[in-house]
Amino acid sequence: MLLPQEIIARKRDKAALAPEEIEAFVQGIVDGSFQDYQASALLMAIFLNGMSVEETACLTEAMMRSGRIIDLPEINRPKVDKHSTGGVGDKVSLILAPLASACGLCVPMMSGRGLGHTGGTLDKLESIPGFRIELGDAEYRSQLSSIHQAIIGQSPNIVPADRILYALRDVTGTVESIPLICASILSKKMAEGIDALVLDVKCGSGAFMKTKAEAYDLATNLVRISQAMGKPTSALITRMEEPLGHAVGNSLEVTESIACLQGNGPEDLMEVTRLLCAEMMRLGGLVPSRDDAFPLIENAITSGAAFAAFRQLVVAQGGDVSTVDQPDQLPQADICHPFHYEGKEPAYIGSINALSVGQLVSLIGAGRARADALIDPSVGLYFHKKVGDPVAPGELVCELHINERSLLETALTRLRAALSFSPAKPDKHDIVIDMLPGN
Amino acid sequence: MLLPQEIIARKRDKAALAPEEIEAFVQGIVDGSFQDYQASALLMAIFLNGMSVEETACLTEAMMRSGRIIDLPEINRPKVDKHSTGGVGDKVSLILAPLASACGLCVPMMSGRGLGHTGGTLDKLESIPGFRIELGDAEYRSQLSSIHQAIIGQSPNIVPADRILYALRDVTGTVESIPLICASILSKKMAEGIDALVLDVKCGSGAFMKTKAEAYDLATNLVRISQAMGKPTSALITRMEEPLGHAVGNSLEVTESIACLQGNGPEDLMEVTRLLCAEMMRLGGLVPSRDDAFPLIENAITSGAAFAAFRQLVVAQGGDVSTVDQPDQLPQADICHPFHYEGKEPAYIGSINALSVGQLVSLIGAGRARADALIDPSVGLYFHKKVGDPVAPGELVCELHINERSLLETALTRLRAALSFSPAKPDKHDIVIDMLPGN
Repeated sequence: MLLPQEIIARKRDKAALAPEEIEAFVQGIVDGSFQDYQASALLMAIFLNGMSVEETACLTEAMMRSGRIIDLPEINRPKVDKHSTGGVGDKVSLILAPLASACGLCVPMMSGRGLGHTGGTLDKLESIPGFRIELGDAEYRSQLSSIHQAIIGQSPNIVPADRILYALRDVTGTVESIPLICASILSKKMAEGIDALVLDVKCGSGAFMKTKAEAYDLATNLVRISQAMGKPTSALITRMEEPLGHAVGNSLEVTESIACLQGNGPEDLMEVTRLLCAEMMRLGGLVPSRDDAFPLIENAITSGAAFAAFRQLVVAQGGDVSTVDQPDQLPQADICHPFHYEGKEPAYIGSINALSVGQLVSLIGAGRARADALIDPSVGLYFHKKVGDPVAPGELVCELHINERSLLETALTRLRAALSFSPAKPDKHDIVIDMLPGN
Repeated sequence: MLLPQEIIARKRDKAALAPEEIEAFVQGIVDGSFQDYQASALLMAIFLNGMSVEETACLTEAMMRSGRIIDLPEINRPKVDKHSTGGVGDKVSLILAPLASACGLCVPMMSGRGLGHTGGTLDKLESIPGFRIELGDAEYRSQLSSIHQAIIGQSPNIVPADRILYALRDVTGTVESIPLICASILSKKMAEGIDALVLDVKCGSGAFMKTKAEAYDLATNLVRISQAMGKPTSALITRMEEPLGHAVGNSLEVTESIACLQGNGPEDLMEVTRLLCAEMMRLGGLVPSRDDAFPLIENAITSGAAFAAFRQLVVAQGGDVSTVDQPDQLPQADICHPFHYEGKEPAYIGSINALSVGQLVSLIGAGRARADALIDPSVGLYFHKKVGDPVAPGELVCELHINERSLLETALTRLRAALSFSPAKPDKHDIVIDMLPGN
């Protein structure tokens, strides 16, 4: 077997690593035979010299096998999950898990917390008093059997190699590497024991992938690698220039998710959610085509089944369901400061910079700058207007929900900077850019 | 100040690092603010994306400043040192330090041990019983003042950053990087307090630089960087296809060095030594041109001054000078096995593979595979014939000096494989390929 430095040198010299070399690396970082300084040198070599689809699939497989792999033979529904690369106002998972389960799928979703300018599904759910994102193994399986959905944090014995590698990548400038991102995302999803996977690759100023080229590159690779591992997989590429929906901030986003499940969701958010749900149903074999799924999805919402499923999820995971029935009982900020259009002439909302909005709500407490920081569930922004909407002088554009009065002026300054107004109606692009592999 | 991961990301993205970034890196690896896994990621980024002459000079300077810098104001001679990139049979330092001091220079030489297939000057000197390669600071300076030469090991407070970086490079596949090699070599030489430097960059199968292109690249960079730091510097590029001189192995090489100092050296070895000495004298300002130096060098040898200087060096550093006067008193191997030309027709020595010879003598105990291994000073090879020499059937080609009889057959098999014979006289190339910057 090659020494670690010999494996590193091969990738340094642009060779394709053999499966046993990749396994030696992944096993070595877990058992200590590959030192962290050797792992980081190899990560940089992978960052700069890349990995083929075969190598990345092999890395994903080795990472998945570094810990426990969940198998759910007792579930008699198709098990399909969704993963999003993260955006601002992206509360799709909260709507999708109950909706898809109401449509006949099982959704075993292991999710993450927010970091930087993007929110995290677990943080949002925790704004529901009592909601537990850590379930014991037996409890998790029993919940999936009974209500066919769960949204929980990743247990520490799932893909331990990813935790080690991610911590290293974070401090060695090796985060933004397509093969490393793919292996990190897919190893965790594959360990969930799913039958198929749908990805939402966000693209734009508010996403990690800023350009269409980057988003297509990531989406193409995710689909290829996942398919190479035998899982039917599709990737939606969606625009992330303005925040998704109206609400940004944890309890505000739960409230908006409830509205969606009750049939009162904003169109951009619902379009993405419906399309993801339809593709999950198609890959899960419930429908022959997405067009067959849409009426079923519509019916799940209008019949109340989707909202009922969300109530079941909240009850099953210990959340106070009365706050779901009366969302004004969710944590509320002390200050709700209106922001009005300050121009003298009628205009249109020209842009709402999602990155700036994400940073703003993080600054006022909705997100975290460090992994161990506490977050404030009540704060955030609610946009009454979206890009392309007309505004009259003095008209309400959005509300700032904030607890720290001392941050109000800074927040308003940043909010002004995040918005632009235009005398002419701006071109509004469809939220959905593409669906890969395309069919 | 940027975080380590931000500095790493800049080099990853092919930026030129600013002086303060390079200083933060070097200082950080010594004080712990730059973790080893961050250092290795940056080393890989430097390996793959390179460094400009300015960046490398800055890295060299920062590494030099990571420890003690020797200043020798009490020495009233030009202080000039030589560094070789290492070859097989390369005992030039043992001849050059006394020779150059006999010619009027001061040679404050800090040298290294052998590793892999190349020998080390310190190991060779230690085959002289009693010879000490560690001198206290006062003793070192006093010796330089009195006899104008010293050959010692690098003290631990000189360039500590290099020890840390070298250990990391060795296990992370980042050794063979021109900027990192240059900074490692030059930081240590600059810390010696020299006025000028001459380099012997070896090129060929027995050297670290296998091709002329690689050797020119390294030599050019070494000269540029050293000159950018204000030190007059030249680099000789010399061939390393067959071993230099006749002897390979520690006490055998000491014996050959003594012969050289007494005027009985082989031509290839003497040509390199004379040229290096002449260039050191020119850079030190003792002569206007190398041509003016050669008669002085010749005279130092024929007058006995050079050999007397070597005796002084041995005495000063505690060595048993009787072994210098009677080299057969140096450690001798138990077995001296002759190797004769086994062909049936007269022929010429076609090639002697220096790498194979280096590996062979290392295998029988003259070198070390690990940094902490012990070496056997007595073993080695003595070539009675060199490339281009005619050999008759049954004629003695070389002697194998060995202690482990169990290794004899393996050694002979390897020796046979290292030699080739040719019916026609092979073209013999001049040992000296070039001198940079060239004047």
